[in-house]
Amino acid sequence: MNRRTFNFHLMAALPALTLPSQNSLRINLRIRGQRLNAHLSELAQFGKTPEGGTHRVAYSEEDLQARQYAMRLMREAKLDVSLDAAGNIIGRRAGSDAVLKPLMIGSHIDSVPAGGSYDGQVGSMGAIEVAQTLAENNVRLRHPLEVVLFQNEEGGTIGSTALARLLTDQDLSLVTNSKKTIRAGIKVIGGDPDNLASAVRKQGDLAGYLELHIEQGGLLHQEKINIGVVEGIVGVNWWEVTVEGFANHAGTTPMNQRKDALLAAAKYIEAVNRVVTSLPGRQVGTVGKLQAFPGAFNIVPGKVVTSLGLRDLDAAKVRMLYEKIQAEVKLIEAATGTKFEFKQVTSSQPAPTDARFRQAIDEAAKQLGFTTKLLPSGAGHDAQEIAHLCPIGMIFIPSRDGISHSPREFSTPEDITNGANVLLHALLKLDA
Amino acid sequence: MNRRTFNFHLMAALPALTLPSQNSLRINLRIRGQRLNAHLSELAQFGKTPEGGTHRVAYSEEDLQARQYAMRLMREAKLDVSLDAAGNIIGRRAGSDAVLKPLMIGSHIDSVPAGGSYDGQVGSMGAIEVAQTLAENNVRLRHPLEVVLFQNEEGGTIGSTALARLLTDQDLSLVTNSKKTIRAGIKVIGGDPDNLASAVRKQGDLAGYLELHIEQGGLLHQEKINIGVVEGIVGVNWWEVTVEGFANHAGTTPMNQRKDALLAAAKYIEAVNRVVTSLPGRQVGTVGKLQAFPGAFNIVPGKVVTSLGLRDLDAAKVRMLYEKIQAEVKLIEAATGTKFEFKQVTSSQPAPTDARFRQAIDEAAKQLGFTTKLLPSGAGHDAQEIAHLCPIGMIFIPSRDGISHSPREFSTPEDITNGANVLLHALLKLDA
Repeated sequence: MNRRTFNFHLMAALPALTLPSQNSLRINLRIRGQRLNAHLSELAQFGKTPEGGTHRVAYSEEDLQARQYAMRLMREAKLDVSLDAAGNIIGRRAGSDAVLKPLMIGSHIDSVPAGGSYDGQVGSMGAIEVAQTLAENNVRLRHPLEVVLFQNEEGGTIGSTALARLLTDQDLSLVTNSKKTIRAGIKVIGGDPDNLASAVRKQGDLAGYLELHIEQGGLLHQEKINIGVVEGIVGVNWWEVTVEGFANHAGTTPMNQRKDALLAAAKYIEAVNRVVTSLPGRQVGTVGKLQAFPGAFNIVPGKVVTSLGLRDLDAAKVRMLYEKIQAEVKLIEAATGTKFEFKQVTSSQPAPTDARFRQAIDEAAKQLGFTTKLLPSGAGHDAQEIAHLCPIGMIFIPSRDGISHSPREFSTPEDITNGANVLLHALLKLDA
Repeated sequence: MNRRTFNFHLMAALPALTLPSQNSLRINLRIRGQRLNAHLSELAQFGKTPEGGTHRVAYSEEDLQARQYAMRLMREAKLDVSLDAAGNIIGRRAGSDAVLKPLMIGSHIDSVPAGGSYDGQVGSMGAIEVAQTLAENNVRLRHPLEVVLFQNEEGGTIGSTALARLLTDQDLSLVTNSKKTIRAGIKVIGGDPDNLASAVRKQGDLAGYLELHIEQGGLLHQEKINIGVVEGIVGVNWWEVTVEGFANHAGTTPMNQRKDALLAAAKYIEAVNRVVTSLPGRQVGTVGKLQAFPGAFNIVPGKVVTSLGLRDLDAAKVRMLYEKIQAEVKLIEAATGTKFEFKQVTSSQPAPTDARFRQAIDEAAKQLGFTTKLLPSGAGHDAQEIAHLCPIGMIFIPSRDGISHSPREFSTPEDITNGANVLLHALLKLDA
């Protein structure tokens, strides 16, 4: 990679500078792509796996080292670095207008087990790079700026939830991928689990939140689009599904006398697919888990444990899909002599992004010469929690082949640079 | 229970005796149902489970105790008891015609783990009761009689296979439910694994084999039929089936870009059911195993491990069903972007019973006043192996609700008595 590659879009989009006014300075401001990508490479050393990915679960030794590294970069970017009681890392830069509330940018640096080196990390290093760019160009925003690295996003957006509401004892008792409880983890990273009320922000405490992230899907990569403007983060709804039939000898039980729980589950899986794809839109429905019991060649399955996942930007549509699936299940029960039970285990509301934020992102991207596409986020993000507090916006960059949560997760240095520049300029627009 | 109940069918069917000739003696011969059922209760003590079933896997301490008990009963029935090199228990009674080969009757006394107290045990105690009845009535058959208790039927018809062919090193290395290898197990029960050639019988060594067994299916019980005349033992064919798709994030992968191995498996399960039930006949097709990988709410399944089982009396029909299923699988692969692999792990040929034996069973049952039905055996039996050596016949009695391999397995004392009387009289007819 070289600078020419990084600046290709920039050079096409912008005329040569003539007036070094504060305004033109801002318009021509660019993050330093080589530095940003070097930081990402350095960050990827903490928890690097033989497969070339990253294993850096929250509260682990690797997580602690990566946090130290990130705080060093934040101080170099002239940010005033502190931890809140939840252990979130917050770097502050003062604004010029004392009455304005802070604009927040950031993401997370923890990973899933055996994950990749881009999810969360691009947005975290990107936000620090934006702050560094403002500092070294002496650009002061009207709003205070907060660069945030939320702790334990992959374990359930814990750090961002701690801003949106007081974590409960139940939350704090959860055992995470590091085998520590959230409570113990917060202590390990330097937070104070007995003082979490101080981490909670009120509605109105923040002017807005912007997050840069990899798409984790394949749309932008396939369609060769530079920047995704996120229209919202889908609601995630998971059910555990149990199918009860009757186990019987597979050799001696005639076909018409079976109560085959696996045949019923097969009809259910097809029904979920049929219902979800029968409507226009980007809703998804997934049966991700299934095990048949007792699970022998020789025995008609008497029980199946399976699942249902439904996601959409529109909660009413999810409810409607669920009801259509329930109607199909009734028919399947009658046809197969089985009984289904649905137990909801997760339900999050869709979090729409703010129209002004979407517009700022789209305009910033187009000014920089990038193509854009409006798309939903199928994955959950910290922004979803922060949406309870203030308007949010999210910027996506392409993920190669849509692969994520895998060592094969990859975004090009150019796309990463582009994304950070869009973050910078969307921030400048929102600040203006 | 009392004698009147047991003899109900007999009394309806037969006129009072007037001529105590050898012939009328034979026609009026009856086993002693109370004794037989008492023996079954005593046998059930070896490995009795809290649920009221039997756990008596081959080569276990319980199996050894049950074998000692059965050998005592055989000696009381004036049988000449010995073990062959495979550890099968054989009780001999001489015949009157020196040129005739032996007629063999018997079954097995080992059980599946946590099984019932009837499977194999009814036929074993029934065969001993027949020998006892012949002995105490001084009835000498023309053929020599062999009462056999095959070892380890539930672990793969090991004892009967040892009569049909020389067990291989591979057979002997198999680890059974008792955690012993077949080789070690044969030693434990008093056989000689280094001298197995002596246990093998040649074609023509036996005049025939008759086995009494519980149905293990629900047909006789449902239709209130006394005696099943088995038309053959189905061939058992098992395949391990692997479906390869592509694992992906369930939130970010649009429905039309998925290669969902579980959706493909669901279509396959429905196709198996559709193909198998689209033809008349008693064939069965079962998908008994299924697990989706990685198996998370959140991930489109990339891999499924499942199975296929097909059984029928006609091997050509099984091949045809398999080919129809393969044709459906091709369409599913194309529609879902997945790849199926079938690996056959078990293949046994159907074993038809002999027409003369079926007729003897049917006539004996009708003479005794019983209703009969011709039906296949969906489960495998020792008779299947012995069919390689000589003509075979099988007599079924009703299983309550068709339940088997379960503590809930049950046949009434009356049905057990009826079955043993049919065994006795079919044997007398075949001997004549």
